[in-house]
Amino acid sequence: MPGNSAASRYRTLDLAAVPPLLAGLPDVRARLGGGPADWQIREVGDGNLNLVFLVDGPGGTVCVKQALPYVRAAGPAWPMSLDRAFFENAYYQAVAPHVGRRIPEIYHYDPELYCTIMERLSPHTILRQGLIAGQVYPRLAEHMGDYVARACFFTSDLAQACERTMSGVALFAGNQGLTRISIDLIFSDPYLISERNRHTSPHLDGLVDEIRRDSDLKIAVARFGWKFRTQVEALLHGDLHSGSVMVTPGDTRVIDPEFALYGPIGFDLGAFLGNLLLNAYAQPGHATTDDDRSSQQAWVLTQAQQFWTEFRRCFLDLWRQDARGAAGYPGALLRDPIDAAAVARAREAYLDGLFADMLGFAACKMIRRILGFAHVLDFEAIEDHARRAACEAAALGLARRLLTHPAEFPTVEAVVDAVRQTAGARAD
Amino acid sequence: MPGNSAASRYRTLDLAAVPPLLAGLPDVRARLGGGPADWQIREVGDGNLNLVFLVDGPGGTVCVKQALPYVRAAGPAWPMSLDRAFFENAYYQAVAPHVGRRIPEIYHYDPELYCTIMERLSPHTILRQGLIAGQVYPRLAEHMGDYVARACFFTSDLAQACERTMSGVALFAGNQGLTRISIDLIFSDPYLISERNRHTSPHLDGLVDEIRRDSDLKIAVARFGWKFRTQVEALLHGDLHSGSVMVTPGDTRVIDPEFALYGPIGFDLGAFLGNLLLNAYAQPGHATTDDDRSSQQAWVLTQAQQFWTEFRRCFLDLWRQDARGAAGYPGALLRDPIDAAAVARAREAYLDGLFADMLGFAACKMIRRILGFAHVLDFEAIEDHARRAACEAAALGLARRLLTHPAEFPTVEAVVDAVRQTAGARAD
Repeated sequence: MPGNSAASRYRTLDLAAVPPLLAGLPDVRARLGGGPADWQIREVGDGNLNLVFLVDGPGGTVCVKQALPYVRAAGPAWPMSLDRAFFENAYYQAVAPHVGRRIPEIYHYDPELYCTIMERLSPHTILRQGLIAGQVYPRLAEHMGDYVARACFFTSDLAQACERTMSGVALFAGNQGLTRISIDLIFSDPYLISERNRHTSPHLDGLVDEIRRDSDLKIAVARFGWKFRTQVEALLHGDLHSGSVMVTPGDTRVIDPEFALYGPIGFDLGAFLGNLLLNAYAQPGHATTDDDRSSQQAWVLTQAQQFWTEFRRCFLDLWRQDARGAAGYPGALLRDPIDAAAVARAREAYLDGLFADMLGFAACKMIRRILGFAHVLDFEAIEDHARRAACEAAALGLARRLLTHPAEFPTVEAVVDAVRQTAGARAD
Repeated sequence: MPGNSAASRYRTLDLAAVPPLLAGLPDVRARLGGGPADWQIREVGDGNLNLVFLVDGPGGTVCVKQALPYVRAAGPAWPMSLDRAFFENAYYQAVAPHVGRRIPEIYHYDPELYCTIMERLSPHTILRQGLIAGQVYPRLAEHMGDYVARACFFTSDLAQACERTMSGVALFAGNQGLTRISIDLIFSDPYLISERNRHTSPHLDGLVDEIRRDSDLKIAVARFGWKFRTQVEALLHGDLHSGSVMVTPGDTRVIDPEFALYGPIGFDLGAFLGNLLLNAYAQPGHATTDDDRSSQQAWVLTQAQQFWTEFRRCFLDLWRQDARGAAGYPGALLRDPIDAAAVARAREAYLDGLFADMLGFAACKMIRRILGFAHVLDFEAIEDHARRAACEAAALGLARRLLTHPAEFPTVEAVVDAVRQTAGARAD
């Protein structure tokens, strides 16, 4: 269990403090080779909540991640429980047996420093940056679809005894600080006047005002917020956007699961899908005279589509192979061959529900990244504000339709087609 | 937090051990008056899991309830965690501020003996026994509808900060022993060949076989089982049948919340509704030449109907008065007067969902009491097996329709009408 107050050994690490820490860990020291004097260290944290040090030794490399007691982007005025490092580590431990090499290897966790020493991913880059730069990653959708399917399936009652799931629910229900952030920043703040919000102004002022007066849209958002808080289907990463994925052309790794919680599977699905769609909408904003980015946009949309189809295929495969006893669903009462057709229909219906959840959560995520506190580089890197606003407005348009007219989107192809029809607009 | 093993002081209480225990508690001693030699004690536990002692002193009375380390009805061969006494006490504490006199007053909880000393309810009788005996309780539906509405509303995110709800979810996710019993005995065993099952045989053999081969029915049961395990809307009593309610003509008290857990509100609603419907179906079996029980059946069905309408009215009233901040649903983002119509629609839709859940869970509960391990006195007290089987078969018929044709039951009136049309059959 996490401690609720900073332990006495806690101190914010700096470049001078990291080498003695690592030198005291024989396995890590052996991995790096040489001694502290031989190690090169730099701080590279670009997220909102942590310090991240990369350490190079003559024999190898490690990454050191430490939780800060406040939101880095806001400073000490926005305090933040250190326990999130505990939950990040607990998430990694829970999914590690099931997801193969899709997460970094964890070498050491220091519960007093709230600090994880893990595999340094190299030459990986942050997926979001790669997508903005026009890179393609041929196995991205396959890897991520499989990842979400496996991480969720194996941490749910579909694959494990209900007692184990209940213990997981109990443990991660302690991750209250970061869950509160999700509730406020995704499902509430963007629809209110809040000093934490910003948007591309004045270009989007009218649209933002319209959104904040759209009762039907807000009801839909509130309904997904309620689902987020009351449905505990599986252990979720909790923040699975394209900044939480590191890639090479052949590899994909999921990082930063500090928002981990038991919740609705559609929330992780929607986070990843929504961020791919945001990137697709941002592509015209990155067009140059040499490259209108239409082929990159087309590739991103193919990945969005394949992400769902791969998730669905993998999840159903696992379910057919692995459903167990009374803890499963449908479970032991439907094991007879005469039940097979009904079971198959029930599984399809369950996946249809996950699809609907994915679209709703994706839309909520898209809106919060344009109207709320934390924006995405996909749009922020578009320097021309009018051009950026045009991309953002198109993305907001789809998000609203996903929430208020979900019946228009019975398939992932319908979603991708809608993006194709609305994301081409150029403001200049 | 509960202990996971029996503490050293634990021992099974008996008539000789109770007086010294109570004598050591000054408040309880004062309440009883006199001394141990003046107290009259009898053991009256008739449930499956506990010892219950009633103690009369010259100044007052108390009830002593102790958890046994095994299922009483099955003996030591079916061990059972003592922690349920902890969760019972935790449930009482959580709802006490909100439900007024609908629960007994708790005088003392002994965490090592897993023993609660509480108000002795007198001259109350167990509701189930009263209903079988043909008694009426004019305020029953009003009291119970209000009770479920208040206990659930105030322990949900509708009324309290999400951090508090998450702490409750974490705490009650520890009640794994009794939750496992619910999962197995309600959502699995009745549909399988299990030595824990029994039914009125041979009369129901054909129907039971048909039910166990009804894939669509079993899929519906499995879906409600999944909902039971994955939806954490509010703190539930967890076993709210008519044996967990004590009554006088003017008073109603809820007891025995040891199955308490965070779950779907429809589960508590369905438990109570389902047990009223079982009683209505059992009434013809208790007919005599003087009383065909049609008026008692009509009264029970009126109560079933009023239970839902009163719950709905009370829950909506609380919601309109008491919804708070971002933790509520719809929440802070829908506070503008222009949102009022959409909010009202969303609340009605939410209540419609609870209604559908109630019917599904009621049906699951009805079936498990006829085909599963623990039966109900409503039917068991019908000595003529053919007559009993006719009542049970009619109840099973409605339960199946509720699960496989839910669209036929858009209102509680439709449910009650269906009972009226099918519960009159007399086997003799």
